[in-house]
Amino acid sequence: MRDSDVVVVGGSAAGLTAAITAARHFPNKRTLVVRREDRVLVPCGIPYIFGTLKSVEKNIMPDASYEANDIELLKADVTKLDPAGKLIHTSKGDVAYDRLILATGSLPIMPPIPGFDLAGVFAIQKEMDYLQDLFERLEHARNVVIIGGGFIGVEFADEINKMGDARITIVEMMPHCLSLAYDDEFCVEMEDLIASRGIEIKTSVKVESIRGKDRVESVLLSDGSEIKADAVILGIGARPTVDLAEKAGLRIGLTGAIAVDQTMLTSESNIFACGDCAEKVSFFGGRPSGLKLASIAQTEARIAAANLFGITRQHCGTIGVWSTCVGDLALGTAGLTEAMARQHGYNIVTAVVEGPNRHPGGMPGMSKLKMKAVFEANSGIILGAQVRGGPAVGEVINAVSACVQKRMNAEEIATFQIGTHPALTPSPVVYPLVNVAEMAIKKMRQHG
Amino acid sequence: MRDSDVVVVGGSAAGLTAAITAARHFPNKRTLVVRREDRVLVPCGIPYIFGTLKSVEKNIMPDASYEANDIELLKADVTKLDPAGKLIHTSKGDVAYDRLILATGSLPIMPPIPGFDLAGVFAIQKEMDYLQDLFERLEHARNVVIIGGGFIGVEFADEINKMGDARITIVEMMPHCLSLAYDDEFCVEMEDLIASRGIEIKTSVKVESIRGKDRVESVLLSDGSEIKADAVILGIGARPTVDLAEKAGLRIGLTGAIAVDQTMLTSESNIFACGDCAEKVSFFGGRPSGLKLASIAQTEARIAAANLFGITRQHCGTIGVWSTCVGDLALGTAGLTEAMARQHGYNIVTAVVEGPNRHPGGMPGMSKLKMKAVFEANSGIILGAQVRGGPAVGEVINAVSACVQKRMNAEEIATFQIGTHPALTPSPVVYPLVNVAEMAIKKMRQHG
Repeated sequence: MRDSDVVVVGGSAAGLTAAITAARHFPNKRTLVVRREDRVLVPCGIPYIFGTLKSVEKNIMPDASYEANDIELLKADVTKLDPAGKLIHTSKGDVAYDRLILATGSLPIMPPIPGFDLAGVFAIQKEMDYLQDLFERLEHARNVVIIGGGFIGVEFADEINKMGDARITIVEMMPHCLSLAYDDEFCVEMEDLIASRGIEIKTSVKVESIRGKDRVESVLLSDGSEIKADAVILGIGARPTVDLAEKAGLRIGLTGAIAVDQTMLTSESNIFACGDCAEKVSFFGGRPSGLKLASIAQTEARIAAANLFGITRQHCGTIGVWSTCVGDLALGTAGLTEAMARQHGYNIVTAVVEGPNRHPGGMPGMSKLKMKAVFEANSGIILGAQVRGGPAVGEVINAVSACVQKRMNAEEIATFQIGTHPALTPSPVVYPLVNVAEMAIKKMRQHG
Repeated sequence: MRDSDVVVVGGSAAGLTAAITAARHFPNKRTLVVRREDRVLVPCGIPYIFGTLKSVEKNIMPDASYEANDIELLKADVTKLDPAGKLIHTSKGDVAYDRLILATGSLPIMPPIPGFDLAGVFAIQKEMDYLQDLFERLEHARNVVIIGGGFIGVEFADEINKMGDARITIVEMMPHCLSLAYDDEFCVEMEDLIASRGIEIKTSVKVESIRGKDRVESVLLSDGSEIKADAVILGIGARPTVDLAEKAGLRIGLTGAIAVDQTMLTSESNIFACGDCAEKVSFFGGRPSGLKLASIAQTEARIAAANLFGITRQHCGTIGVWSTCVGDLALGTAGLTEAMARQHGYNIVTAVVEGPNRHPGGMPGMSKLKMKAVFEANSGIILGAQVRGGPAVGEVINAVSACVQKRMNAEEIATFQIGTHPALTPSPVVYPLVNVAEMAIKKMRQHG
């Protein structure tokens, strides 16, 4: 029987990061990854296969890190966990472990809508053949309907739009696209941009059914309208893949993911979990969180793997840091939006600043950078910020995340030492993160 | 006699930020800025006047914030401070103050080299007419010699190169350009890029004299070579402008700047100082620091102004966060380089990571991002990091700065929650700031 000191089930963002971390922290232990896929897709890169990369092949996560870190790889289906026996059953035989990390990921949610199983209806499965089929379908599609206006919906819409001249419609049941990720003013700006690129957006409307004989022909909405469709994409969320864990008796959490403590240990000794399959709690008050992102997965993986042979790391709760972009417009969030903060029950002060992302404003690459930050009203502690601007937004929110994670208050942020450059950043005099803190302080004084 | 509750002397990055901060924090006090200039240049934008903006006019700091924040402006020369009388003498009459902020900036150092006063030799004074003269001179220059390979030298060289086909030579007495800002490997990459753009670099050599009759004709170097020159630019540093303060009896610090405490108060009650004219101490051990940057000035200004009527903010010492870029190559530093850390006497561990700044690597805008981080060996606390890459480098270093300022150690940084996006950032699996911390942890374990 095959065996390894550390066995990781799953080879995507969580599994690979966990394996690399285990190999780095425990160079004298053997680490084995068991994964189903021959080659693994970059999960967040999937939308970009269609209009930008123009090939499924170009969205592969390189396997070079297996050899570089001396990690073994077994391509097999895991069929059963046996915690008592400290082994797993796979399609290629049993594997014994000393420590096990579950990184089994998630699968797209299939909606309770008649017709979702018609040919031509695609959820976004992270499989090469599946996406190749989708790619070919989209190359010839005339009318594409995307159900769900979240990240998948928006990014797919824009990418499919680049492929040709299909008519594309996003159907979103909330009043705005991306409304779980940004406050309305940011969502509206993105909707306007998408619409200006020729994509139709229908919000505050549900899908009643997907119609067709053998293949999809149209989508019927709750307002009675019917949209022609020869391809439908479902982007309404993902559910954690927990079958193996559940059957083996591991405790499942409130969100339906594998329950873990702050060390990423499951209810079973010697079994850790991380990534989309693992239960998350919010950094803000500790309530269960349904967020699923590769960036969240990698943090959990680093914690799980470092703790395998003695606890050294603890998760402080999921902050939630993300970004998206369409054309030159990038939107990012670290921590809570205003709407989320209110839902959480915080008393808040918000502040908004806006200005050029270069100085002087005539420098090349200039675009408008807007930052909205949310502070707890009494302590002044930052709860989060949203940023719109150019490509650097993806990194601006990481500075915000550091401030959030260290629970910096507005006073600290106002004197936080930043660097600036005419060709790379906004002016030091009005640097957004610092300036927004000053604006919040002013507001807190007026109200306080 | 004119009077104001708050009087700020100087209207560049420090003075303007101080005035805005005072106006925000003390809306019931009157704030007056006294400045010499009719219009104020964006200080860091000055090099970009020449090849990018192509006009002095396009590098003006807008005065809109005076009206927006209800700040008065007096355009006058300040001739004398009278701390006992709580007033200043100006070319347009006396002005009484309740609190005074000195933000008098710095002037370029003139080297003790024969011939530096010849026509055609320019230091970089922050004055419109002066720069207009320089602009016109450079438009017709055939041979330009730049003395000093720091930020001014490198940025000017590249900008002048964009103006036409003058032969440009940088003369630097240290072994590498930018060696006060980056470790050698980064300096070499920038030197190679500059050289590939046709600019000549002479390092480890001093200037003996600048030669010419009435106008500059050549520059004689310590290796005996002589370079033809019809324009010479001096970029060898700046000295704080402290004449007014010194004559008024204010204490001067070890670097020749106005001595201040951690609240930015000078030796004289009711007089604060900030920016290039104010003495700085290092965040790392508190020794005097000669750093002068607009970003540093704005932090000091926010501290000084907030403390005018009761201390609320304290400076934790200057971290030093900067970036520069030539073409598509940006280099940034937050905190200490390896060389600086060793000079400071730290026992250190360094780690380097390198990879694409997009994921997958085929995404548009991909360039190589390299990060080198320096950690104190016992505590694992981050002392600084250097980053090379595309334009987002200017913001990546601000996330680093947050980690430095909060004295985060490698363990904290390894599990610091970042956000990623295929089109905007590196992959989560190898996100540089997190990954470099993991590499350092591995090294510390091996050595520890």
